[in-house]
Amino acid sequence: MSETSSSAPVTQPPPAAAPRGVTQTAPHAAPTGGPQVQRQFVNFSFWKLDPAFRRLSADEKSAAHEEFLTAFNPRRDGLICLSYSTLSLRAECDFLLWRIGSSPDVFQDQTQAINKTRLGGYLSTPISFLAMTKRSMYIDKLDPFHTAESRTHIIPGKRKYLFVYPFVKTRDWYLLPLEERQAIMDVHIKVGNEYPSVKLNTTYSFGLDDQDFVVAFETEKPEDFLDLVMKLRETQSSKYTQRDTPIISCIQMPMDKVLDQLF
Amino acid sequence: MSETSSSAPVTQPPPAAAPRGVTQTAPHAAPTGGPQVQRQFVNFSFWKLDPAFRRLSADEKSAAHEEFLTAFNPRRDGLICLSYSTLSLRAECDFLLWRIGSSPDVFQDQTQAINKTRLGGYLSTPISFLAMTKRSMYIDKLDPFHTAESRTHIIPGKRKYLFVYPFVKTRDWYLLPLEERQAIMDVHIKVGNEYPSVKLNTTYSFGLDDQDFVVAFETEKPEDFLDLVMKLRETQSSKYTQRDTPIISCIQMPMDKVLDQLF
Amino acid sequence: MSETSSSAPVTQPPPAAAPRGVTQTAPHAAPTGGPQVQRQFVNFSFWKLDPAFRRLSADEKSAAHEEFLTAFNPRRDGLICLSYSTLSLRAECDFLLWRIGSSPDVFQDQTQAINKTRLGGYLSTPISFLAMTKRSMYIDKLDPFHTAESRTHIIPGKRKYLFVYPFVKTRDWYLLPLEERQAIMDVHIKVGNEYPSVKLNTTYSFGLDDQDFVVAFETEKPEDFLDLVMKLRETQSSKYTQRDTPIISCIQMPMDKVLDQLF
Amino acid sequence: MSETSSSAPVTQPPPAAAPRGVTQTAPHAAPTGGPQVQRQFVNFSFWKLDPAFRRLSADEKSAAHEEFLTAFNPRRDGLICLSYSTLSLRAECDFLLWRIGSSPDVFQDQTQAINKTRLGGYLSTPISFLAMTKRSMYIDKLDPFHTAESRTHIIPGKRKYLFVYPFVKTRDWYLLPLEERQAIMDVHIKVGNEYPSVKLNTTYSFGLDDQDFVVAFETEKPEDFLDLVMKLRETQSSKYTQRDTPIISCIQMPMDKVLDQLF
Amino acid sequence: MSETSSSAPVTQPPPAAAPRGVTQTAPHAAPTGGPQVQRQFVNFSFWKLDPAFRRLSADEKSAAHEEFLTAFNPRRDGLICLSYSTLSLRAECDFLLWRIGSSPDVFQDQTQAINKTRLGGYLSTPISFLAMTKRSMYIDKLDPFHTAESRTHIIPGKRKYLFVYPFVKTRDWYLLPLEERQAIMDVHIKVGNEYPSVKLNTTYSFGLDDQDFVVAFETEKPEDFLDLVMKLRETQSSKYTQRDTPIISCIQMPMDKVLDQLF
Repeated sequence: MSETSSSAPVTQPPPAAAPRGVTQTAPHAAPTGGPQVQRQFVNFSFWKLDPAFRRLSADEKSAAHEEFLTAFNPRRDGLICLSYSTLSLRAECDFLLWRIGSSPDVFQDQTQAINKTRLGGYLSTPISFLAMTKRSMYIDKLDPFHTAESRTHIIPGKRKYLFVYPFVKTRDWYLLPLEERQAIMDVHIKVGNEYPSVKLNTTYSFGLDDQDFVVAFETEKPEDFLDLVMKLRETQSSKYTQRDTPIISCIQMPMDKVLDQLF
Repeated sequence: MSETSSSAPVTQPPPAAAPRGVTQTAPHAAPTGGPQVQRQFVNFSFWKLDPAFRRLSADEKSAAHEEFLTAFNPRRDGLICLSYSTLSLRAECDFLLWRIGSSPDVFQDQTQAINKTRLGGYLSTPISFLAMTKRSMYIDKLDPFHTAESRTHIIPGKRKYLFVYPFVKTRDWYLLPLEERQAIMDVHIKVGNEYPSVKLNTTYSFGLDDQDFVVAFETEKPEDFLDLVMKLRETQSSKYTQRDTPIISCIQMPMDKVLDQLF
Repeated sequence: MSETSSSAPVTQPPPAAAPRGVTQTAPHAAPTGGPQVQRQFVNFSFWKLDPAFRRLSADEKSAAHEEFLTAFNPRRDGLICLSYSTLSLRAECDFLLWRIGSSPDVFQDQTQAINKTRLGGYLSTPISFLAMTKRSMYIDKLDPFHTAESRTHIIPGKRKYLFVYPFVKTRDWYLLPLEERQAIMDVHIKVGNEYPSVKLNTTYSFGLDDQDFVVAFETEKPEDFLDLVMKLRETQSSKYTQRDTPIISCIQMPMDKVLDQLF
Repeated sequence: MSETSSSAPVTQPPPAAAPRGVTQTAPHAAPTGGPQVQRQFVNFSFWKLDPAFRRLSADEKSAAHEEFLTAFNPRRDGLICLSYSTLSLRAECDFLLWRIGSSPDVFQDQTQAINKTRLGGYLSTPISFLAMTKRSMYIDKLDPFHTAESRTHIIPGKRKYLFVYPFVKTRDWYLLPLEERQAIMDVHIKVGNEYPSVKLNTTYSFGLDDQDFVVAFETEKPEDFLDLVMKLRETQSSKYTQRDTPIISCIQMPMDKVLDQLF
Repeated sequence: MSETSSSAPVTQPPPAAAPRGVTQTAPHAAPTGGPQVQRQFVNFSFWKLDPAFRRLSADEKSAAHEEFLTAFNPRRDGLICLSYSTLSLRAECDFLLWRIGSSPDVFQDQTQAINKTRLGGYLSTPISFLAMTKRSMYIDKLDPFHTAESRTHIIPGKRKYLFVYPFVKTRDWYLLPLEERQAIMDVHIKVGNEYPSVKLNTTYSFGLDDQDFVVAFETEKPEDFLDLVMKLRETQSSKYTQRDTPIISCIQMPMDKVLDQLF
């Protein structure tokens, strides 16, 4: 397993003409059983603006707004970054940066740039999840829901709503025979496939962060996602959930509009 | 299920002549089995004023008071917003905005307006719940307590007291046969119906927030509600409760009186 | 049950000549089976002074001291308010206001007055419990410990020590037959009666706050109370305790002495 | 039990010539079965300096240093107070005051004096434990480890290291027959006696604070204490532990050196 | 056991020519059964910079940067100190100091020096773990993974990634017969040995801090570590895990580059 990342190509960042940070074409995903692909790092960082920033003068705020976008907007090699507003959707935070990179160094480089702005003196990150991509050990026999590709390369879409949460399974789960787990997952996947409007991105945090997985669901129809989650409660997989909170609802939004919301 | 929201009418905001944010007439509720209704988004956002605001001069505070109401009071299309004081009733917060809208965008628009006021530099939201309306899967055979309508459209009343809490059921609950759950709910509903002075609003948070449901009870008689909750402890449904805190007591109050309490 | 409060007299505040907020005579307590009495609201609000207040000049602090007492000291109709110091007894807070009123409005009115003082710009309430009085469903066959009166009207004494904590029983408890619960409570009450120096005030929070009950023990002999609690650990009732923290030790103290301690 | 404290002598504070707050001679400890001794109050208060204090000028800091020692150093009647540094040993706090007194009033008097200093405007107490002394109900048949005296009078030594933690036993423990508990404790005590370099002080918090006990271990050899705790994990008593955190490591240090560490 | 540290040599700090704080040669490790070695103290202190520092002028920040390095960089006798960035990897903190010393006094001395810098007025330590080295009680029959040496002397490497977390085993674990625990550990160690790119450092916190152990994994290949942890979930040892969070991912980085990231 130590050779996993030896010879795979690095995920190509999206072409320069594309909207910043959004992949428009699938990267070089390997077919199952084919050559291994480079695994990516994924960071969900949730940011909060100190209300004290709002007490500054209109001029100071306007300058900080412009300065922040100048630091934030340029495309960074090896980094895909999507912004979402969480304002009024979650108490602890104001916005999310969903970051995907070939190395965590690119997350740090972007945060360093943020830290050097005026706004950086008023921003904190009350919630953060770190994860990596990885091919699933469960086979999706139908596959419209989980593509092998989606576990090794995140291709964030342009859907309005994103629902993110960490996921910890009970230790009992991992001691079940693989066949039994596959059977339980078959039902789980089958229910998921009834809601084609919902796209799931699963990433892996074992040993990197407090959770086992971070799951991120994209959809245009939040009511579908709600109904899906409620229906999954009635499947056997549900009883092997140890923790699945905090659950954070997000709305995709360009960064300048996010800032407009905040001050 | 993905067609749920396709052709249903959007909830009508209350007529302009009505008190801001209070529905006076029932929206276009669909009879059971009839055409589907638009599901609503519901946000319970609990706000706290930084005590440091109180250190400002009387003039600054007075100006901030007026400015806030100017931003807050105008009716917003698609938004129903009720204000409640939680002062001295709960440690973490000072007031609640109970917001109901056709989209979470309207919650964000209102918060954006608040963020741009002087007071917005001193406000935070230590507690927030996000939910949607949905028709209940349990049949209330008697029905004075839970109307089908109340699950798909929130019609907040004018009662003085509101008791809000998130609700998580055990995973075991969801694995019971539906008939067994219905039988348990029958008893639960029967007890509820003994307290006609208490009106229940149930909303659904599966996948949107940490809880399964957010429940909001309206009454003029808090002692009735207390007795009801105590009596429900003795029903079978009680043992399937995983979490039902924080429980937050609220008193309905126009926003200008809320501000009068705070500074 | 909805008639509970219909025709009962409101608790009389103590006569004006009495020390502020202390009842000296028993209110119109109804004998068991007699006419119903007005149930009271009870608020245990624990306050913390921001250490930054101590950095102000001696003159500012002295003026704030005087201003606070002017706002705090006058008797308020319908409100009984006792002050206790928690300094050095509990990390989160500095003092307690034990408030008993015919309506929560009187708690809010007093807090509003506090919020308008200079000191109010530096005070927060990290812990708060809300409850109501209610007659116990368990019969105390000996009765020196729990009088029926003490559950429907709080008559706070003048004892030096007060020990307050929220109390949540397991859901299993509430599903036991009433006779079994009564038998377990008989033993519990019997142990309590061995410590006549300890007076118990039980109030009910079902649906109003996170706990089932708030219990407040008054005594001159804290060592007796410690021994009582330790002895109760060995009774059957103990195993039905879900949560009984935070436990907060308090020392009765007039407000001016509380302030003397803080700055 | 209510006569416990009736006629016993108050613990004598150490002679004036002794280092402040350290008892050098045993107080009037009563032999088992003899006249009862006065039970003491014990407070472990853990303090944190707001980093903002460090931003003050060198002159201000130097003056605050001197002023604090002037308020802190004089011996107080009825109070034994030992200072320990927790810097770099525990995240939440910087130093510990281990206070032993005949009444909690003496803790409050000292804190009041601290509150009136310049440094008091930057100090908070993120952790605090309140307890009382009490004779153990378990007999130590060998007794070098737990003397009857050590439970009713704390005689803090001069060892360099102190390890403090709250201790909550499961409710099941208290429902075991006393003989069974004594047998389990016999093994526990026997293991403890293998580590004579470790001195245990047990105090009781039932009803006064969130824990059952506060335990404080003094030693010159932290590796011995670590090995002892690890070995105790293998005894039956271990499975009746409900909670034993936070565990706080402390190093004895005079207050002026503590302040030297902090700014 | 109280003689453990009597005659063993103190760990030699690395030669002056070496990079500060990194051991390049193995200290005087004792073979199993040979003379005892001095056990070391280990501190993982995670630091956070108050965003308010970023609001200072460029000159102030630049001077603080230089001053901090002057205080931090000089080698300290008896202290090995490695710096890691946690920026964007964990919400609560910005960087880690992994400190190994013959006494906790050296940790305090270094923190005292930090506290006296300008930056020290804006730094806090939201997470801290304290531990000691100790020889494992389990025999690694193959031994490439756990060397006896690695438990009594930490020899931190130069690998880029470090994953640190506290570890608490269930009380049931400690009551298993030693042979059974050894058998379970055999499997655990065997899995570990399949990932030679991952180096484990285990330290012991019994009685010193909230956890039983602190584990620190060093690797160049985080994907290997993730896969290892995931695979270990399927071993029997996994079900005896009581708590293994917070898990903190760190990237080795000299202190000047850490500061460059922060402001």
